[in-house]
Amino acid sequence: MSEVFATRRTRLRERCAAVGNAAALVSRPANVRYLCGETRPGAVLLLGPTEDVLLRPAARAAEPAPARPEDDLPVRELTEPHGDPAVAAADLAAAAGAARLAVEEHHLTVDRHRALRSAAPRLDLADLGCAVEQQRIVKDDDEIAALRIAAEIADQALGELLESILVGRTERHLALELERRLVDHGADGPTFATSVGTGPHSGRLGHLPTDRRVEEGDFLTVCLGAGYRGYRCEVGRTFVIGTSPADWQIELYDVVFAAQRAGREALAPGTAYREVDRASRQVLAAAGCDATLGARVGHGVGLENDEDPRLAPEAMGKLDARVPVTVEPGVHLPGRGGVRIDDTLVVRPEADGGPELLTITTKELLAL
Amino acid sequence: MSEVFATRRTRLRERCAAVGNAAALVSRPANVRYLCGETRPGAVLLLGPTEDVLLRPAARAAEPAPARPEDDLPVRELTEPHGDPAVAAADLAAAAGAARLAVEEHHLTVDRHRALRSAAPRLDLADLGCAVEQQRIVKDDDEIAALRIAAEIADQALGELLESILVGRTERHLALELERRLVDHGADGPTFATSVGTGPHSGRLGHLPTDRRVEEGDFLTVCLGAGYRGYRCEVGRTFVIGTSPADWQIELYDVVFAAQRAGREALAPGTAYREVDRASRQVLAAAGCDATLGARVGHGVGLENDEDPRLAPEAMGKLDARVPVTVEPGVHLPGRGGVRIDDTLVVRPEADGGPELLTITTKELLAL
Repeated sequence: MSEVFATRRTRLRERCAAVGNAAALVSRPANVRYLCGETRPGAVLLLGPTEDVLLRPAARAAEPAPARPEDDLPVRELTEPHGDPAVAAADLAAAAGAARLAVEEHHLTVDRHRALRSAAPRLDLADLGCAVEQQRIVKDDDEIAALRIAAEIADQALGELLESILVGRTERHLALELERRLVDHGADGPTFATSVGTGPHSGRLGHLPTDRRVEEGDFLTVCLGAGYRGYRCEVGRTFVIGTSPADWQIELYDVVFAAQRAGREALAPGTAYREVDRASRQVLAAAGCDATLGARVGHGVGLENDEDPRLAPEAMGKLDARVPVTVEPGVHLPGRGGVRIDDTLVVRPEADGGPELLTITTKELLAL
Repeated sequence: MSEVFATRRTRLRERCAAVGNAAALVSRPANVRYLCGETRPGAVLLLGPTEDVLLRPAARAAEPAPARPEDDLPVRELTEPHGDPAVAAADLAAAAGAARLAVEEHHLTVDRHRALRSAAPRLDLADLGCAVEQQRIVKDDDEIAALRIAAEIADQALGELLESILVGRTERHLALELERRLVDHGADGPTFATSVGTGPHSGRLGHLPTDRRVEEGDFLTVCLGAGYRGYRCEVGRTFVIGTSPADWQIELYDVVFAAQRAGREALAPGTAYREVDRASRQVLAAAGCDATLGARVGHGVGLENDEDPRLAPEAMGKLDARVPVTVEPGVHLPGRGGVRIDDTLVVRPEADGGPELLTITTKELLAL
């Protein structure tokens, strides 16, 4: 891992140097983790001017720090219980002769920014912007490997649930069982509140489980996220409970399935983000049920649940190869329920076989 | 609830007016919830100058907003998918003729603060500081009632676990079972990652569950948090597994128990925060095991896990009546394990019977 992190830091340093920033301070937790594997809350990374240093807040107790992948980055641990590692980093940069330090103005609060200014008044604070987030969009092999494992775990947990008896159990219990299975299979844990919606709750985006019990004839929508080594994959499926789905259920399922497939098939290097959204949205609109789709059809995943790119009507930019995204259209009919289908895929060129589907649970309409 | 929120807002408005701020923008989520019950992520509250308004971001999809307790506060929902409610609030304040708007500089990022400035360039942005957090330290009846229920739920979950067979089960499974039981008994959910430490892991602050199984002769430390209507209570206990504890276990337990009792007994209106810490720390120091206590012996609880006050050596300030705090000393001996005991109590005057213990699970050393 040491080389992977060093390579990522070198790319960022080159990018900073290109705009005249000899030193940069990375404070956003997912960005710090990306650049050096550190997960302790509050840790920051100083890049340059002479060397890179990881600065950690004082430990809460005499406890070992969370394990960090091997890396030869120097580490400084603050001793003062309330010391801000970002302030210590600004000190260090100034002492090392930096004239200018780029900071993450979208993450630092006004208070902390002021503290940096007063700690190092001669340091010119610039804005690093979302340089690290942009670098994170295209994933390297290690990252995609972690996402594949996260997807496998999510698929396993979901598959096992489907083999158990569902009728009569509450949404809360099903969600907790899924979360337990994720952990059993080696996930860091669920990466967002597992969504289980039955009957009239089915198909709702981000529905939080209630005490409603699964009944014969219900749609059942499940959406779960699994984390593995920090990388977050999600999968969502809708099933029907009982021997045979009603006609309206089959029709609605077919529409959402077609919309999701259209989105998946639109994934290719060079495709505009908004085109993926449009591909799904058009299918729903043709069936007269686009109003409930929401603001976007999918989004990037990685160290966060919800990264760039946004696959939305107003999004600017084009897909690259090696970008993992979700495609997750859904329709919810108030009072009746609905369907959501959510996959995580990695964008690949046609020559490599097109988009790589990470979440392989079947998308047939299963009657359970 | 309507009156409770209105009263809280009036107190804050008076406090703002006293320092010359006719309008204030509250953006920190726990503060927004405290002042109007709103829980949608990204919602902000504008106080004054002419009326108070809750501003919500655009809904992600055609979904109902999370339920909010009854309140006659006007609500504005943004329609633009990426609109920042804080910017809309600054607009509104400027349009209503405010010259000055106090904002939470410890919460707003540099980027958002800049966006506010450019949206309303004639508005003078001041700092609200931690005015809402300070107001939140002393709890009202509704808040203490919610904390009592949260404590009851945590006690119930813990009590049920103790009745089950523990030997052979992993820390992860015990933690997940506790979390399931919290939800079964009506909690919003666990309020932090439930900590279960067995054998050499016992007594570690914030230990994250592993696959280690409970063995005969182990110490078992459990620390869990339950949320009820947003209010967060925590309880931590240490048990011994098997028929009879070893001598070192009894001795260590007695020391931590005495330290925890000393901290609890120090809780009274007018006592300095640091005195509570000192009361516990002295007991541990006399036994030669203060080095592993960590930075503080306890902290406030409420809408967040870890609120003011800090019960720590360097903390400034004195306890008031109706302040709920934890008292949670622990000792961890590397390679052997240790003991933590954690209660949530509400500070009360002597005349009212002294501190009110919310978490009533026994603190005898149980051999399970």
